[in-house]
Amino acid sequence: IPVIKALREGLIANRIGNIYGILNGTCNYILTRMKREGAEFDDVLADAQRQGFAEADPSLDVDGFDTLHKTGILASLAHGFWINPGQIHCEGIRFISKLDIQFAEQLGYSIKLLGVVKSVQERKGVRRGSGSKIQVYVCPVMVPEAHILASVNEVFNAVFVRGDVVGDTLYYGRGAGQDPTASAVVSDLADAARDLKFKSSNRIPAFVPHEVEGAVVPMDEVVSKYYIRLSVIDKPGVLAKISAVFAEGDIGIASVIQPRSDEGNVVPLIMMTHDAANLPMSNALKKISKLSVVKGEPVMIRIEDLS
Amino acid sequence: IPVIKALREGLIANRIGNIYGILNGTCNYILTRMKREGAEFDDVLADAQRQGFAEADPSLDVDGFDTLHKTGILASLAHGFWINPGQIHCEGIRFISKLDIQFAEQLGYSIKLLGVVKSVQERKGVRRGSGSKIQVYVCPVMVPEAHILASVNEVFNAVFVRGDVVGDTLYYGRGAGQDPTASAVVSDLADAARDLKFKSSNRIPAFVPHEVEGAVVPMDEVVSKYYIRLSVIDKPGVLAKISAVFAEGDIGIASVIQPRSDEGNVVPLIMMTHDAANLPMSNALKKISKLSVVKGEPVMIRIEDLS
Repeated sequence: IPVIKALREGLIANRIGNIYGILNGTCNYILTRMKREGAEFDDVLADAQRQGFAEADPSLDVDGFDTLHKTGILASLAHGFWINPGQIHCEGIRFISKLDIQFAEQLGYSIKLLGVVKSVQERKGVRRGSGSKIQVYVCPVMVPEAHILASVNEVFNAVFVRGDVVGDTLYYGRGAGQDPTASAVVSDLADAARDLKFKSSNRIPAFVPHEVEGAVVPMDEVVSKYYIRLSVIDKPGVLAKISAVFAEGDIGIASVIQPRSDEGNVVPLIMMTHDAANLPMSNALKKISKLSVVKGEPVMIRIEDLS
Repeated sequence: IPVIKALREGLIANRIGNIYGILNGTCNYILTRMKREGAEFDDVLADAQRQGFAEADPSLDVDGFDTLHKTGILASLAHGFWINPGQIHCEGIRFISKLDIQFAEQLGYSIKLLGVVKSVQERKGVRRGSGSKIQVYVCPVMVPEAHILASVNEVFNAVFVRGDVVGDTLYYGRGAGQDPTASAVVSDLADAARDLKFKSSNRIPAFVPHEVEGAVVPMDEVVSKYYIRLSVIDKPGVLAKISAVFAEGDIGIASVIQPRSDEGNVVPLIMMTHDAANLPMSNALKKISKLSVVKGEPVMIRIEDLS
């Protein structure tokens, strides 16, 4: 996808706001098939490996590291400084189950692995860009079905970029394979050849890697809405216990879905929260996972309305 | 949308295949609202005019002329020769009714006004590009709901470009307004300033307008599938009469939808055809419109699977 040229030249008049990228073809292929077929991650991964859509060692893709590297590059291009990969919070898609995808659909969302770069206006009265900080993270995100990113399926990638002048833009294309990569390399070579011919190799200034201390907001402070799925024993009082933990962390519950079952069974409990920072949310989930009525690890997926 | 840079530089390694563009924000806004609200064209247009989303004289937009000009530019960029606007077949969206949008939805399609540039391989054994012809036209098209172009709503524009190396790509952004235009102009000015500084103004060769005789396929020969909506008197034998006209023109019927009603009423009759050229289709519709059982003008919308 010719997104680097778009960011550096096409959007040169813009200060870049939020960037949301579907940056890994393997993950998007797996999530698309899980949704279409109502299948579990492990089964789709195994089949994708047989078909050559996933590597024998899939970690680089499904654990989010490939997306992390690309997100770091996009953040650097948009904001002009180098982002240490160690500063980028990273979650993969292994923990997503078909249940999550079904509940997401019921709630009007699709789950996508996103690289997110958000521009946060920190200090008032400071010219935008100079005093601003950024949030950079990689994780599965529930995006509204009506948003164009929800329509990016199969092995396709897309980068959604908001510019302060141009508004919302999106760049979409195949994310993997020899041919799309060759197309991009030839375009770069043609650019380089032109620059050699015209002795204009500094025409688009090279990126000078430098870090900016404190420019990346720690993940603990990043605020979002959350989808939480717990496996709980179905008996009276369970919701009260869990709600109490959230209340303690000052986390507001927006809605709850509790499917019916016979008392005593283990059932999913779905909760959607209002805005909360990552730290109190992580702490609440740690406490909740230790409750005797809660079985297994809580599942947490961020919800972004991308507005 | 930085699509010109993408076509000329980002996709330089590619021979460009088909291009499908949603190129007019006003039309897309009207079609989006007609679909969401189940409203008629005239009502939405009047409201769009009150809100400033449509001009007092909407013809340039809703009759497709703005899309025609942009389609001509995309075709020239992709294929290297000038396309005379008079050679571009052009239909607007005035004739689309809420019925068409509802039937389209039922059949799994969205209606979008598209600028279409198709690359047609004419002669076998000739290197692609040298012997190829193109089809260029502007008309409402039924696109599959699952296709990413169907998710381009409101005033947004998008250009879907297939390259023979890169595969499918899409460029999406706001199609109108002062700010997106300013963003594009500043980007062009920055490019020009760089070229002045580096004396590299011929770095990306200027487009030299020249026509290529016979390179544009006449619309009469353009083949597609069609959605046809007729208003017919509901009585036995009507379908037989209409089918006979299509059979005469060697046009295959893929499916028919005939809503139930009381005999003698005027009802919609929907027909989906197999592939047929524009000329026999137009001739068949002329004959059909003269049948005594057919009331009003037939509605014809092309169907593209965009594959």
